[in-house]
Amino acid sequence: MSGASLPERVARAALSFLAEPGDPALGPLLRCCEPAEIMAALSSGDDAGTVLPAAGRDIPGIGQAFRRWRARLDQVPSPARLSAWEGIGLRQLCPGDPEWPARLDDLGEARPVVLWLRGSADLRHACLRSVSMVGSRASTAYGNHICAEMAAALAERGWAVISGGAFGIDAAAHRGALGAEGVTVAVLAGGLSYAYPRGHHELFAAIAAQGVVVSEWPPDRAPTRPGFLVRNRVIAALSCGTVVVEAAMRSGALSTARHARDLCRPLMAVPGPVTSDTSAGCHEIIREWGAVCVTGAQDVIEHVSPVGEGLGARRRGPYCPRDRLDPVSAAVLEAVPARAGGGPAVIAAAAGVDLDTAIGCLGALAAAGFVERCARGWRVRNMA
Amino acid sequence: MSGASLPERVARAALSFLAEPGDPALGPLLRCCEPAEIMAALSSGDDAGTVLPAAGRDIPGIGQAFRRWRARLDQVPSPARLSAWEGIGLRQLCPGDPEWPARLDDLGEARPVVLWLRGSADLRHACLRSVSMVGSRASTAYGNHICAEMAAALAERGWAVISGGAFGIDAAAHRGALGAEGVTVAVLAGGLSYAYPRGHHELFAAIAAQGVVVSEWPPDRAPTRPGFLVRNRVIAALSCGTVVVEAAMRSGALSTARHARDLCRPLMAVPGPVTSDTSAGCHEIIREWGAVCVTGAQDVIEHVSPVGEGLGARRRGPYCPRDRLDPVSAAVLEAVPARAGGGPAVIAAAAGVDLDTAIGCLGALAAAGFVERCARGWRVRNMA
Repeated sequence: MSGASLPERVARAALSFLAEPGDPALGPLLRCCEPAEIMAALSSGDDAGTVLPAAGRDIPGIGQAFRRWRARLDQVPSPARLSAWEGIGLRQLCPGDPEWPARLDDLGEARPVVLWLRGSADLRHACLRSVSMVGSRASTAYGNHICAEMAAALAERGWAVISGGAFGIDAAAHRGALGAEGVTVAVLAGGLSYAYPRGHHELFAAIAAQGVVVSEWPPDRAPTRPGFLVRNRVIAALSCGTVVVEAAMRSGALSTARHARDLCRPLMAVPGPVTSDTSAGCHEIIREWGAVCVTGAQDVIEHVSPVGEGLGARRRGPYCPRDRLDPVSAAVLEAVPARAGGGPAVIAAAAGVDLDTAIGCLGALAAAGFVERCARGWRVRNMA
Repeated sequence: MSGASLPERVARAALSFLAEPGDPALGPLLRCCEPAEIMAALSSGDDAGTVLPAAGRDIPGIGQAFRRWRARLDQVPSPARLSAWEGIGLRQLCPGDPEWPARLDDLGEARPVVLWLRGSADLRHACLRSVSMVGSRASTAYGNHICAEMAAALAERGWAVISGGAFGIDAAAHRGALGAEGVTVAVLAGGLSYAYPRGHHELFAAIAAQGVVVSEWPPDRAPTRPGFLVRNRVIAALSCGTVVVEAAMRSGALSTARHARDLCRPLMAVPGPVTSDTSAGCHEIIREWGAVCVTGAQDVIEHVSPVGEGLGARRRGPYCPRDRLDPVSAAVLEAVPARAGGGPAVIAAAAGVDLDTAIGCLGALAAAGFVERCARGWRVRNMA
């Protein structure tokens, strides 16, 4: 399988133990040096300037950064410990891996060095048709209700729901999607084994069973306060657009909204009573940032869909007309058994393509809402 | 006193009994013929073409219109009846009168032929700093509460509140302004003596005592269903901007909003719970028409004020800095007794200007929020 090389994987894993996500020096450094090269320089004990290529030496604060990272060298896990994590269902994702979401590359130097994942869903495919739903931890019954309904309606129409796994709006978003048997992605601000908040232990297990739990932090790292804000850029970057459901004026959810805006991703907000402090942030970004006022899943889909596609949804037709598919994808879709479903090998044979091609097409077709997984493999999705 | 001539006043009064407001032929006709000329042609009994100037003959439907208007000639009131209305406190306003709001001229051919007024406030001055607040008759407790609070806050800061005198949001807007001892304007869709709805008899009396009640219809004309929509253009045209507080998707309030948009006046809407049908129209115009999402009087003032002025309001300073006044207005303002107040003659003498000039300046200064009426005449308004 293509993807990051083994030395790169090992080096990126090690770097995720040394540098905090969002480290201001590591992003620029990774533009000009290979991860393994950086690890070699760190392990050599020499000063940065003596080992790194010339380009790396000019990065502001690189000397301090090296001292900071070196101080943690003893935290880099042994290969045995990395294997043990794999044994308990964690997987490591690097840029270039087939499951790596291309959207994250829009973050530029702020792109995560590595992601740790747990769960059954394919993160890249999930993100292709996804909406981030974020909001206050101190949400109201109104916000929780609206959020869960909207997430369920999005999930029913084949959209994955991305959120931060926190109490309040985040939990309502995940639960709404789960209740509709949809895919949901929780992006945590601490390690997956730590799984903060503890009260969401069962929720995270449910998300992993049906979707995926994601973190930039090493598995056993406890979350820190600034980490939540750093994490928010990933929530915004993974999805096609961000909806703020309920947020007070200084809510952390507005930092996710700011990232969505800075990434030029559609930004939406749900209005609420003007008497409610937890809707004040929503009204503020509608008025001041031009966030679109959305009142239901249909509004959201129309706004995040490519031009014309959302209107198709209102007409209750398929999201992408079949006749816009490339010939190979169309042949694979034609070969998928309508109701009973079938395995990739059967579908590949019927479509006249090789197994790898069939699997690739099935993933894309699933992301576009044409097919879905079933007990026997894949079946055509009911678009009615 | 300058203003419309007596023949024009009589002719316009008569025309208001013959043609319904918004009559599609009368507006174009008034562009090319004097009102008295039109009345003479109607009274002559001849066909339109034989008496009217050439330009009037080409107006589409002018023949039908003449037959329509002639059929009502017996309804034109006698001079004695017109005088009787004046005796009970009604006044007639024509384009060109000092109290005629210049904003109405933005309606072009749809400008009212005449307005009938009852009340103590000067309509033109009231409209200079005014906001229309409109919404559903079937409003919720939430909508009524928000509307009354917003209207009171606007009134406290020297803004007149314009609405349609109906049940629900309209009534909350008027009552909010009255409660804050502010000026409020009710624009009715039927005659002032008829004063629909009857249940608002006392409200209209209170509005007349502190503000002004206005109608395009002759005093004893009962309202008709289409009249409410025709009336809405006047509500939108009179004010600096329109706020929709609560409106269902097909609410008549959205017709006022459409007029505000078509007149390029600031259009605003108050958000509410997305679960509330009476907020759905507000969310729709925020999303689809670009109405500004406002949550309080401060938002409204910032949006309707000339650039920079609203920000001054946030700083709690005067709306117009004194040093931007022309020298004569500044002298008059300087001459107004700060607390005790004084009559126009005293102020004129102190400022070194004649009485007419002083009265004109005082009206403009009141409209700009610098001075206010008091028992002894005028006093400086507390801007803190």
